Amino acid sequence: MNEVLFRHAVPSDYQPIIAVVDEWWGGRRMADMLPKLFFVHFQPTSFVAEHSGMVVGFVIGFVSQTFPEEAYIHFVGVHPGFRHNGLARALYEKVFAAAAKLGCRTVRCVTSPVNKGSISFHRRMGFSAAHSEKLVDGVPVVEGYDGKGEDRVLFSKSLRVGIGQAGA
Amino acid sequence: MNEVLFRHAVPSDYQPIIAVVDEWWGGRRMADMLPKLFFVHFQPTSFVAEHSGMVVGFVIGFVSQTFPEEAYIHFVGVHPGFRHNGLARALYEKVFAAAAKLGCRTVRCVTSPVNKGSISFHRRMGFSAAHSEKLVDGVPVVEGYDGKGEDRVLFSKSLRVGIGQAGA
Repeated sequence: MNEVLFRHAVPSDYQPIIAVVDEWWGGRRMADMLPKLFFVHFQPTSFVAEHSGMVVGFVIGFVSQTFPEEAYIHFVGVHPGFRHNGLARALYEKVFAAAAKLGCRTVRCVTSPVNKGSISFHRRMGFSAAHSEKLVDGVPVVEGYDGKGEDRVLFSKSLRVGIGQAGA
Repeated sequence: MNEVLFRHAVPSDYQPIIAVVDEWWGGRRMADMLPKLFFVHFQPTSFVAEHSGMVVGFVIGFVSQTFPEEAYIHFVGVHPGFRHNGLARALYEKVFAAAAKLGCRTVRCVTSPVNKGSISFHRRMGFSAAHSEKLVDGVPVVEGYDGKGEDRVLFSKSLRVGIGQAGA
């Protein structure tokens, strides 16, 4: 993680990121899920990682306005050349810390069941998948959560220190 | 507007809406812009219009977490059979009232320059377009605002009563 600088996302980060995000996601069409509004209106819980002045990772989070004790991570992206370095973990931890400071006790996110890398990442980060009767490779999946054919795994994690630790 | 009931959006509104939203938008692929999260986490500023138990319109708004005195309207949709009835206006006014109550003084939204109906609607609602050097049919357009080829008109409106009225 040497030479990587973390800071809050700002609107001017949007253009360079949106130009490469589909490529970072292996050609999947992701840009529609990421209008600029997320870089404008959710800065307190959104971060970028910079290396030599170039954005090499970002995460978009927000505080739920229905459930103010919950944060939600909408999107994370890491430059393919900067993976397996703990960058996504570090970005998530920035969101956890910012959200906890804003009074959140839980963080949620959803991912696609096809995205095995994301599922394993969230498990390593201590997220649990919400119960569902449908299991795909042992992972509970909510059918059509984001519309027809758009199944999702619903992850959540407590932000309270010590939760789940024996004797904590 | 007889027989139309307005209430806050709830997560169970999502499935029936996402199933028809592309159709309501004349076949444009809009569903990717509307993940379920908007119906879960932004309920205080999001509303649906119901007629005979069926959702015939909805609006998704939120309070900016970067600029807490600004609200943002992300999405509005009205059933084609219920247009030209003031339904979109009534939904927007619900957001204005909710946002004002939450301390907002401005409401913002963006729309595509191709969407002439949306541009004229926002003007009738008292929105002004942000200045830009690029004009399309006299409307200022920010080039590539939401990514390459995704030009947008940036609208804002003051929520303070009397603003802009002589003698107010």
